[in-house]
Amino acid sequence: MSTLSTIQAIRHNKAFELFIITIIIASALLVGAKTYDMPDSVVQLLRFMDWFITGIFVVEISIRFIAEEKKLDFFRSPWNIFDTLIVFISLIPIENSDMALVARLIRVFRVMRMISIVPELRMLLNSLLVALPRLGYVMALMFIIFYIYAAVGSLLFEEINPVLWGDIAISMLTLFRVMTFEDWTDVMYETMAVYPFSWIFFVSFIFLTAFAFLNMVIGIVVNVLEEEHQKELELDPNHVTLQDLKKEISELKLLITESRRD
Amino acid sequence: MSTLSTIQAIRHNKAFELFIITIIIASALLVGAKTYDMPDSVVQLLRFMDWFITGIFVVEISIRFIAEEKKLDFFRSPWNIFDTLIVFISLIPIENSDMALVARLIRVFRVMRMISIVPELRMLLNSLLVALPRLGYVMALMFIIFYIYAAVGSLLFEEINPVLWGDIAISMLTLFRVMTFEDWTDVMYETMAVYPFSWIFFVSFIFLTAFAFLNMVIGIVVNVLEEEHQKELELDPNHVTLQDLKKEISELKLLITESRRD
Amino acid sequence: MSTLSTIQAIRHNKAFELFIITIIIASALLVGAKTYDMPDSVVQLLRFMDWFITGIFVVEISIRFIAEEKKLDFFRSPWNIFDTLIVFISLIPIENSDMALVARLIRVFRVMRMISIVPELRMLLNSLLVALPRLGYVMALMFIIFYIYAAVGSLLFEEINPVLWGDIAISMLTLFRVMTFEDWTDVMYETMAVYPFSWIFFVSFIFLTAFAFLNMVIGIVVNVLEEEHQKELELDPNHVTLQDLKKEISELKLLITESRRD
Amino acid sequence: MSTLSTIQAIRHNKAFELFIITIIIASALLVGAKTYDMPDSVVQLLRFMDWFITGIFVVEISIRFIAEEKKLDFFRSPWNIFDTLIVFISLIPIENSDMALVARLIRVFRVMRMISIVPELRMLLNSLLVALPRLGYVMALMFIIFYIYAAVGSLLFEEINPVLWGDIAISMLTLFRVMTFEDWTDVMYETMAVYPFSWIFFVSFIFLTAFAFLNMVIGIVVNVLEEEHQKELELDPNHVTLQDLKKEISELKLLITESRRD
Repeated sequence: MSTLSTIQAIRHNKAFELFIITIIIASALLVGAKTYDMPDSVVQLLRFMDWFITGIFVVEISIRFIAEEKKLDFFRSPWNIFDTLIVFISLIPIENSDMALVARLIRVFRVMRMISIVPELRMLLNSLLVALPRLGYVMALMFIIFYIYAAVGSLLFEEINPVLWGDIAISMLTLFRVMTFEDWTDVMYETMAVYPFSWIFFVSFIFLTAFAFLNMVIGIVVNVLEEEHQKELELDPNHVTLQDLKKEISELKLLITESRRD
Repeated sequence: MSTLSTIQAIRHNKAFELFIITIIIASALLVGAKTYDMPDSVVQLLRFMDWFITGIFVVEISIRFIAEEKKLDFFRSPWNIFDTLIVFISLIPIENSDMALVARLIRVFRVMRMISIVPELRMLLNSLLVALPRLGYVMALMFIIFYIYAAVGSLLFEEINPVLWGDIAISMLTLFRVMTFEDWTDVMYETMAVYPFSWIFFVSFIFLTAFAFLNMVIGIVVNVLEEEHQKELELDPNHVTLQDLKKEISELKLLITESRRD
Repeated sequence: MSTLSTIQAIRHNKAFELFIITIIIASALLVGAKTYDMPDSVVQLLRFMDWFITGIFVVEISIRFIAEEKKLDFFRSPWNIFDTLIVFISLIPIENSDMALVARLIRVFRVMRMISIVPELRMLLNSLLVALPRLGYVMALMFIIFYIYAAVGSLLFEEINPVLWGDIAISMLTLFRVMTFEDWTDVMYETMAVYPFSWIFFVSFIFLTAFAFLNMVIGIVVNVLEEEHQKELELDPNHVTLQDLKKEISELKLLITESRRD
Repeated sequence: MSTLSTIQAIRHNKAFELFIITIIIASALLVGAKTYDMPDSVVQLLRFMDWFITGIFVVEISIRFIAEEKKLDFFRSPWNIFDTLIVFISLIPIENSDMALVARLIRVFRVMRMISIVPELRMLLNSLLVALPRLGYVMALMFIIFYIYAAVGSLLFEEINPVLWGDIAISMLTLFRVMTFEDWTDVMYETMAVYPFSWIFFVSFIFLTAFAFLNMVIGIVVNVLEEEHQKELELDPNHVTLQDLKKEISELKLLITESRRD
């Protein structure tokens, strides 16, 4: 058996995959453990484990790269690129420097390797991403609503509370807060002291966004139900439509008509 | 080629439409930029760009008006009226006067031209507006619930907190706040200090509105699903119903009965 | 024409109904107007209008009672009983006495006559009430969850904050507040200062109630969809089921078999 | 009649069941009553009633155990084990000791016997539990999102507010709070004072979790609707599919072809 086929055997081995999942979980626990205060000896141990895990990841990525028949195909999968980047960036020795925070953040994202390695999670994420574009126009409409209300809010209320309405970006954040109903009356009562009718601004905004959001949700439900229905039809090889039946009956008629002619 | 047909060619030109969309986005960015503090030279530049955009809008509206075969049809579309009003009101020289705020608000609404020019957004907005009337009676019922609770709240709690329960209008705003769960317990604890059983007022109100709201949402979902189903049936020219099949079979029977008589 | 048939003609007259709806709206506006501070002369006018409206309501109820063929049937409709009670209680002269508040509350409920007189609103309310029983067991389960958590909360947290956890009734109100996410972290952080793991109590409660609520909503949606489907089938007199078609085809077979025997 | 069959008759007697439900309700009311402050004489009475109820429960469990044909089957039902544990632990004399709180908590859980004895509630709870596994992967994905954001939050914001971001566990609780929109802007404004762009952290987290949650809900709705549809098909013994009809028509064709050959 050649070295390549050995490596390919390892790469598709179930035990190897389980081992890598265990290592990813260990790396996730490590990330969690580091957020607690610990004695120096444990910190030392954690640092060692960190390098150990990084080492295993490098070996794993190498195995997966070598096992690939066509090397270019490896970089066609966005998950492979993600894995390679995450692993190799964490090799750069930036511990104890100004970039230490960045190094630690990179280690956090290694938890996402969980998604890249468990096929069910990868499929779930894909199905979520596939659902996004069909929200496109509703999102655009909502953005326009937000933009207009933010511009009006910034024009009218900037002098009342510049922290909330200072410019259009901060106004949009304030409106997002109003949409989540988070202390929105505090924001409103403040403006009502100057413009007594400014409740119209807030109540109309809540109605508009709630209504658009509701329609978005209903749109998704209807779409998903129809897709499921369509998928069901396509998957069933024996599926009979009413059209099929009509055709059958027409053939019957022809048969009978012919038999009468005989 | 006559001038009219040239103008009509421009009006239906894809590049012309894209150019106008770009200008609308520029005008939206301008509206946003004005909410930031800027040096005088930039303010001067923005003002110039504002007049430039207004100029382009005037030209565009004129082209669309001239390209229309029957001039009266132009004003049949509410979007055309909206566009014309927004553009021509922004021509009135009210900058630096008492009405400056109104002038700036008008400019904000130019962002809505995005909806009038992108057909998908216009259709989406139409479909949202079409959904409104079927909510009519549920909205009426909810208004009656709000009105009764607001009247009772104003009667009982006015002396406890006139800011929240002073008159029926402000009471309805307070109840809307309770419906969004926004610090509703603060409102309740205040009244419970005087009327220990006033929690019944708030809890029953939340139950009633939540239940009515839920039924509204479910009503919309069921309606949308049925409409989709109906549309699907109507769009399919080859659609066969069970009734059609029954008719076919009846004809078959007739055929056979006749063939027996022969 | 006899007096009775005249009265019956009035009772079913469209104009009479519209007049009564106008009076109910006027009475609703009156209820709202009274919540504002007004000069004495207007108050006097409002009081006169109040008696005028009460007078019209008495005449209307009398007409509807006299127009009824069988007098006992009149009291079979709960809406008739409601109308009669609301109108006659508001006749009792309790203005300016200790019971003035009750008198004013009774007048508020006259707004509900809007529901009793508009058939669409009455039907909508009926359909809401019909939906309630099918929620029975989920409501019972939710009540048990609330009761257990309230008992545990009262046992553990009473000494921490007796205002929120003093007895089982007030604990259930606090839990309802937690379910609406209203400042629930304030309640939690307070108990976590004594029992650091009390977040389990709150997070598990939120999960349980959210999950039960979600299932309730989904249950209603499924029920409503099925009912609509059933109703559709029953309403369509020409409705053909697949069973019908099968029977037809069986008859065909019989026909052909017989024709072969001939 | 033997003693065993007498006991079995009692066990399946409707009146016996109703009596036990009454006792469970009484025990629930007792649990509630104990949360109120009461004179010593009443406390004494409540303690007596408590032992009386415990006694009845012991007798009931014994009857159910003796009535069981195969004694081992009794412990196969998790509800029987639950009932037995709850009843026998409440027999341990830990009143007035350090464990008094535990003893009282055990008594609270006797309210759950309501679920174990009413078949409809037991079925409802089962159906809720059955729905849980299909949420498995979405829950896993959500946990990963929470874990990553909590690790990042703990890294970046620990020094800003250690009470909210001290370690990964407390950060996850803070993120759960953000997901319920509970004063999430207070948490955000605090971090924005140090990192002005930290709103991206919160807004992206809210979008991600809201989107995942929405998909979970829609997934459940679609699943439940399909299951209902499947159940309906299976329950109907006369159910005819389009395939059945096609087969019937094929047989017809055969009949006619044969009759022509005659």
